[in-house]
Amino acid sequence: MAVSNIRYGAGVTKEVGMDLQNMGAKKVCLMTDRNLAQLPPVQTVLDSLVRSNISFQVYDGVRVEPTDGSFMDAIEFAKKGAFDAYVAVGGGSTMDTCKAANLYASSPRSEFLDYVNAPIGKGKPVTVPLKPLIAVPTTSGTGSETTGVAIFDYERLKVKTGIASRAIKPTLGLVDPLHTLHMPCQVVANSGFDVLCHALESYTAIPYNMRSPCPSNPIQRPAYQGSNPISDIWAVHALRIVAKYLKRAVRNPEDLEARSSMHLASAFAGIGFGNAGVHLCHGMSYPISGLVKTYKAKEYNVDHPLVPHGLSVVLTSPAVFTFTAQMFPERHLETAEILGADTRTARTQDAGPVLADTLRQFLFDLNVDDGLSALGYSKDDIPSLVKGTLPQERVTKLAPRAQSEEDLSALFEASMKLY
Amino acid sequence: MAVSNIRYGAGVTKEVGMDLQNMGAKKVCLMTDRNLAQLPPVQTVLDSLVRSNISFQVYDGVRVEPTDGSFMDAIEFAKKGAFDAYVAVGGGSTMDTCKAANLYASSPRSEFLDYVNAPIGKGKPVTVPLKPLIAVPTTSGTGSETTGVAIFDYERLKVKTGIASRAIKPTLGLVDPLHTLHMPCQVVANSGFDVLCHALESYTAIPYNMRSPCPSNPIQRPAYQGSNPISDIWAVHALRIVAKYLKRAVRNPEDLEARSSMHLASAFAGIGFGNAGVHLCHGMSYPISGLVKTYKAKEYNVDHPLVPHGLSVVLTSPAVFTFTAQMFPERHLETAEILGADTRTARTQDAGPVLADTLRQFLFDLNVDDGLSALGYSKDDIPSLVKGTLPQERVTKLAPRAQSEEDLSALFEASMKLY
Repeated sequence: MAVSNIRYGAGVTKEVGMDLQNMGAKKVCLMTDRNLAQLPPVQTVLDSLVRSNISFQVYDGVRVEPTDGSFMDAIEFAKKGAFDAYVAVGGGSTMDTCKAANLYASSPRSEFLDYVNAPIGKGKPVTVPLKPLIAVPTTSGTGSETTGVAIFDYERLKVKTGIASRAIKPTLGLVDPLHTLHMPCQVVANSGFDVLCHALESYTAIPYNMRSPCPSNPIQRPAYQGSNPISDIWAVHALRIVAKYLKRAVRNPEDLEARSSMHLASAFAGIGFGNAGVHLCHGMSYPISGLVKTYKAKEYNVDHPLVPHGLSVVLTSPAVFTFTAQMFPERHLETAEILGADTRTARTQDAGPVLADTLRQFLFDLNVDDGLSALGYSKDDIPSLVKGTLPQERVTKLAPRAQSEEDLSALFEASMKLY
Repeated sequence: MAVSNIRYGAGVTKEVGMDLQNMGAKKVCLMTDRNLAQLPPVQTVLDSLVRSNISFQVYDGVRVEPTDGSFMDAIEFAKKGAFDAYVAVGGGSTMDTCKAANLYASSPRSEFLDYVNAPIGKGKPVTVPLKPLIAVPTTSGTGSETTGVAIFDYERLKVKTGIASRAIKPTLGLVDPLHTLHMPCQVVANSGFDVLCHALESYTAIPYNMRSPCPSNPIQRPAYQGSNPISDIWAVHALRIVAKYLKRAVRNPEDLEARSSMHLASAFAGIGFGNAGVHLCHGMSYPISGLVKTYKAKEYNVDHPLVPHGLSVVLTSPAVFTFTAQMFPERHLETAEILGADTRTARTQDAGPVLADTLRQFLFDLNVDDGLSALGYSKDDIPSLVKGTLPQERVTKLAPRAQSEEDLSALFEASMKLY
C-alpha cells in the first residue's frame, strides 16, 4: 500500500504555483490537450504560475486515448525543454502522457520499450530519479492522479498497453471539484464507468495472499498486488459514491455535490486499484478500444474514431462478473447490494447473475450503447479481441478465476448485446 | 492528504533486511526498548539484518513514555553512529524516539527545542533530508508507523509535547500481526483505547474547511488539517474494527483474527488522525500522564510511575464527547451506533449523553479504572491539569467547540469518576 498525496477542495488548483515554488521548480512543463487549453482549468493553472513567477512552457499536443506516437511526441518536447517539474491538466490521457514524458526525459538513454509492460515491452524497473509531477484531473474516472500507471495504444500491434511503476506516480494530485463543471455529460458517464469498474475489479481481484508468483524481495513485487484490506476500503467507499451520485452527476451539470463526490470517488478508486489492480473488464477493454473501427463517441471533440476508455471497460462488466462470481460470491452480492439490488433472498450461487442484472439496469438507466455490437463489433471480431486480450496478463491474471481463450471468446460474445 | 506506506501481513517483518538493502542502507540503527529486545519481534529483525548482511547497531534504551532526556540520549547515539537508515521495533514510544533521533542526527546543528511544537518549542519547519526509517509496531494503538508525530514528556514543565512534521513520517511501516501475540492484555486494552480515541476525535474534529488560520501557502499548513472526507473513511473504518474486535483481542491473547484486526485498525486510525488531527481527549491526556504521581500500570514492566497513553486518553472521553456533541450531533450519534448503541429513537440533542453512556459501558466491560480519581488525582489537581492542557492548543484548537479554562476544569471534574 503506497503513498498517494492528494489535496481536495474547490479552488486548490490556484495553489499550484506555490506548490511548484515550494518544490524549488524554476522551469515547468504544463501538459494538456487542445480542447482543455482553452478552458478554465488550464487558465487557472496559468494564472497561478504567473502569480508565482514561475517560467513555463505549454505542451497542448496530448492525444485523447494516447498512442506510442503521441507519447513520443510529448517525450521529445520534455527532453528538449529540460524541465525541472511537470503539471498535467486533463483526464487520464494527459496525466498518463505527462508521466511518460517525465520518465523518458529523466532517462534519456532508454529505448521506448524498455519501461513498457512485458510481454510487449521489457518491463524494466525504473531506477532513475524523476522530476516532481503535479496532476490536476479534469475528468472523474481515471484516478491517474493517484497511480503509477500510464496507458497508451501501441499502434503497430493495435493493442493497449502501458507503463506501470510506483516511480511515475504523481508527486501530488490536486482534486478540484470546480473542474468537474466543465465536463460534458457523456464524459461524466464514461469516466464514471471507469470508477465503477476500478472499484468492482479491485474488490473482486484475487486476494494479495493468493497471488502468485510472490517474489521474495519486496522490490520485485508488482504495483498491482491483488485485493487487500486497505484497497477494499477504497473500493467499497468509491462504489457507494458511484451508486449514490453517478446518475445525478450525469444528468445535471450543475449538481456540484454529485460532481464533486464523483471527483473524489475517482481518486478513492484510484488509490484502491492502484494498489490492488484491476482484472478482466480492463484487460478486455484494451483491444475493444485499440481495434476501434469507425465509432466516434458523442460529445468527445476528437478527429479520430474513439471508444472512450470507461465505455470499453463497462460493456463487458455483466459478462465478466457473471464469470468471476463463483470465486467470491459474497463480495459480488455485496457490490450488487451497494448498487441497489435487493439481495436479502439471493442465493450464493446466483451472485453473478444478480450483479450482472444490476449492472445492466444501471447502464440501461444511463442510456449506454447496447453492447459491443453498438460499437460496430460482430462475432467475426472475437478472435482479434481475444488475441488483443492475451498480452494483458499483467491485469487478467489478477482475475479471481483463470480464463482460457474459449472463456474470453464467450465473455466477448456475451457482451455483444446487453439488454 | 498523505497516505502512508505500509505493508501488512503475517511475517512481513522478515523482509526488513531486503527493504533496507533495496534502500541502499549500509549501516543501520535498530531502536527498541529493553523488554522487547528479548522478544521475538526484535529477534526476527536481527535475523533478517544478518541474512541480508547489513551491518547494524542496537539501541535498546528507549523509555516507555519518553522524555526530552530519553530522546536526547537516543539522539546522541544516532549522531555518533552516523547511520544511513533506522529501524524502530516497538510501540509508539520507540517509533517516536526513533523519529526524533533520525531528525536531530540529520540536523546536527539544531537545538532540541527548534523542532518542538510551539509554544513550548520553536516549531521550525523541517527542511533537512532525513534517512529512511522503517517502523515495526508491536502494539496496536499509536499508529505512529503512519504519522509524522513524535510525543515526549518535557520534564521541566511536566507536560507532554511533541514534534509534528510530515518529514519525520516513517518511510515504511511493516504491520505484522504476528507481533500482537506478544502483547499483555492490559497493553492491548490501553493501546486499543488510543485507536478508539484517534477515530472518535479525528471524526469529530473541526472540518478542514472551517479551520483557521488556513495559511495561503500549502507548505505552511499544519499536518493536522481537521476532519475531511478522506480521514473520515479511515476513522469510521477503524472504529468499526474497534467495536467488533477490541474486547475479543483483550480477552484472548490467541485470538489472532481479533489481534490482527486491531493491529490494522491502529494503522488505519493513524492515517486518519495523522491527517485530520485529534483534539480534547489527547490534549487533556498529556497533563494526565505528565503529572503522574505513583500510579503504575499493571502489566507494564517499567521502573517509574506510568499512566499508559491510551488510558490517559480514554478516561476523559465520556466528558469530552458530551461537551462536543452539540456541534456535530449526527456524527456523535453515528459513532455511538457503531459502538453498539441503539440510536433509532435517540434525539439529536441527546447525542452527547448517548455516546458518553456507550463509552462508559464499553470501558466498564473492559474493567477500566474508575476515572481520574483511580489514578490518584483529586479536585485539587484540576488547576494543574488545566494548566498542562493550555499549551496543547495544536490539538485542542481542533475540537469542534472552543473551550475556556472553566470548560476544561469541568471536563476534568466530570472525568474523576466514570461509573
